[in-house]
Amino acid sequence: MNMTENDKQSLSMVTCTAPVNIAVIKYWGKRDEDLILPINSSLSITLHQDQLKTTTTIACSRNFQQDRIWLNGKEEDISNPRLQSCLQEIRRFSRKRRNSGDSTSDVSSVSHKVHICSVNNFPTAAGLASSASGYACLVYTLSQLFGVESEQLSAVARQGSGSACRSLYGGFVQWKLGEQLDGKDSLAEQVESESFWPELRILILVVSAEQKSVGSTSGMHTSVETSQLLKYRADVVVPSRMEKMIRVIRERDFPAFGELTMKDSNQFHAICLDTYPPIFYLNNMSHRIISLVHHYNQYYGETRVAYTFDAGPNAVIYTLQDHLPEFVQVVRHFFPPEVNGEEFVKGLPVCSADLSEELKRDINMEPTPKGIRYIISTKAGPGPCVVKDPNHHLLGADGLPKKSAISD
Amino acid sequence: MNMTENDKQSLSMVTCTAPVNIAVIKYWGKRDEDLILPINSSLSITLHQDQLKTTTTIACSRNFQQDRIWLNGKEEDISNPRLQSCLQEIRRFSRKRRNSGDSTSDVSSVSHKVHICSVNNFPTAAGLASSASGYACLVYTLSQLFGVESEQLSAVARQGSGSACRSLYGGFVQWKLGEQLDGKDSLAEQVESESFWPELRILILVVSAEQKSVGSTSGMHTSVETSQLLKYRADVVVPSRMEKMIRVIRERDFPAFGELTMKDSNQFHAICLDTYPPIFYLNNMSHRIISLVHHYNQYYGETRVAYTFDAGPNAVIYTLQDHLPEFVQVVRHFFPPEVNGEEFVKGLPVCSADLSEELKRDINMEPTPKGIRYIISTKAGPGPCVVKDPNHHLLGADGLPKKSAISD
Repeated sequence: MNMTENDKQSLSMVTCTAPVNIAVIKYWGKRDEDLILPINSSLSITLHQDQLKTTTTIACSRNFQQDRIWLNGKEEDISNPRLQSCLQEIRRFSRKRRNSGDSTSDVSSVSHKVHICSVNNFPTAAGLASSASGYACLVYTLSQLFGVESEQLSAVARQGSGSACRSLYGGFVQWKLGEQLDGKDSLAEQVESESFWPELRILILVVSAEQKSVGSTSGMHTSVETSQLLKYRADVVVPSRMEKMIRVIRERDFPAFGELTMKDSNQFHAICLDTYPPIFYLNNMSHRIISLVHHYNQYYGETRVAYTFDAGPNAVIYTLQDHLPEFVQVVRHFFPPEVNGEEFVKGLPVCSADLSEELKRDINMEPTPKGIRYIISTKAGPGPCVVKDPNHHLLGADGLPKKSAISD
Repeated sequence: MNMTENDKQSLSMVTCTAPVNIAVIKYWGKRDEDLILPINSSLSITLHQDQLKTTTTIACSRNFQQDRIWLNGKEEDISNPRLQSCLQEIRRFSRKRRNSGDSTSDVSSVSHKVHICSVNNFPTAAGLASSASGYACLVYTLSQLFGVESEQLSAVARQGSGSACRSLYGGFVQWKLGEQLDGKDSLAEQVESESFWPELRILILVVSAEQKSVGSTSGMHTSVETSQLLKYRADVVVPSRMEKMIRVIRERDFPAFGELTMKDSNQFHAICLDTYPPIFYLNNMSHRIISLVHHYNQYYGETRVAYTFDAGPNAVIYTLQDHLPEFVQVVRHFFPPEVNGEEFVKGLPVCSADLSEELKRDINMEPTPKGIRYIISTKAGPGPCVVKDPNHHLLGADGLPKKSAISD
């Protein structure tokens, strides 16, 4: 495509970033597969974008022939129904605003085709579902481009990927399951901001996965169809856990927060096992990390460290700043990294610490060399942001991905 | 101890054998820890004693100074409270019979001390709880020695080890949880005899365990204390599964039997994961066996093979005679045994079979050399038996273990 100067001026472009979130009360099971309405509420912590984020640039122009999308440098099929849901919903919101006359931006653009370019700053190997940050970033960027401001944005992101709705806010975020059939009240909502509990620290322990696991969409579908325990979890267990989780976060009660987080992770994986055929996301290395955390807490007689696992074998660890250096050293001791391998701890720096012989003896586990590939050290962070500097756009003035945005 | 001819004549001795049983509806959780009363009914299949059994000789004599017990050649502490429960209960039954005057045997012996000698013909490595066959054999042998006949025998064995009550019968056996506080109606009962479903075959796949697991007594205690899902399983899920399991066994409906067996095994392990701290009995090798079974069944579009796992990583496989040779060959293909290692298939002979390339391709798993140490091939079998041949007594005329009964 060869564009004239006039064409270029007709190009609107916005770049935004959005975060990853990790649930501490897990979402597992839909009551409506099309609208992506969950069978239970869930609660997550938004991770800091300095370590993990999706960046998305969206341009629109009257000269674009069709909607197009590039993900991590590769053009993908725009006809994906979940992508289409998000595009249609945002365009519908934008037209509604235009019709009601309260839009502040160039609303004519809503009828133009868009070019979308999106990259993650974290490798797929980190085992973090990129769909949450991805759809949150898509929806947030579209809303900026089309001048849509709405408390319903999270309902749009939800239709891309359920957990994406929680990535529209920073800090501690709940996704209320809602009651309405059309899902309009199935929304994310901030419980507390990212600055509420500054001592809270987060580690992602990336283990080596041997096998590919069942995807979460098909996994939760099979669970809803076959697990007799899931309905009881959703109807009876989760509602009281949601209340309790919000309370202990507001009280910054780490032991109670940690215990509930671990119990809910375990129950989610129990439901996966109660699914037929059963789904295994935890492997022997995950089991060892779980053992290590319980032994460590047992040694101190209190919950200082907590784990949670999503649909894969990697652990996400929550702890307080004061206990972080020692626990990282414990991980290094029981999962000795490759000498001269890549950096073991990435992200936020962690002070070094000494381990007492007593602690090592008390934990009483056989070390597993190279059991953990690396650690990403991070903390709670803010919701989506607009990137002002035009140098950071992923699309060029021609509306096509810049070279730097193409990688594999 | 040097005994005179007169002393020897005062010695009564009985030897019996008792079988192992494998639950298809699992027992997990006690409502009364002292009486060993379960929170749900369970159902098991008694394995054939030609492959797996406990043999117990009990002698009593007015010359014995104290009760003594030797297990697998080593003298153990007789004061174990569960052992004491069984001894006391049987003596109580015997006295009751004597007082009511309907005993047929020498009831004076009930006041004598006993010497108990017990051996298993299966290695601990087989991962089969020996407590079921052990306590069943103890109680059955005592009942023979003291001339006790009672439908309450299983309630006595139950007080040694819950699942022992099911080993007092052959074939298909249910343990009804009962309602009474004293546990008198928490009894085992034969559903169908061992000859009811002759085509049913059983394999025990012995895998290499890396770690020692949590014992089942303390494991189920922690589950009752901490798992929110367990109560729902016991109160809501198991009652309907018991009914269904009895029905599909009576109809010899293997696909329905197999599916329900697998689902209940998975739910038991789900409960273990929902326990806090979580309990893992399945390891990566167990996961691979589970995958293999589901892929195999998928290939044929019907449930031809079913797995169940107790409190350890070894699989027990149920299948029909017709499918046995091929499935064993499938196991041999995907878990290639050590060349020149010990015999791979022990027990009942299994015909050889060829595997189609299509089947191997369709299962699509990476082979795991030496993942399974060996297989024990068996079938359903009878309940406890009296051994008539005095040459098989484990105790000598002096009331002490024969040399052949001492091993380690």
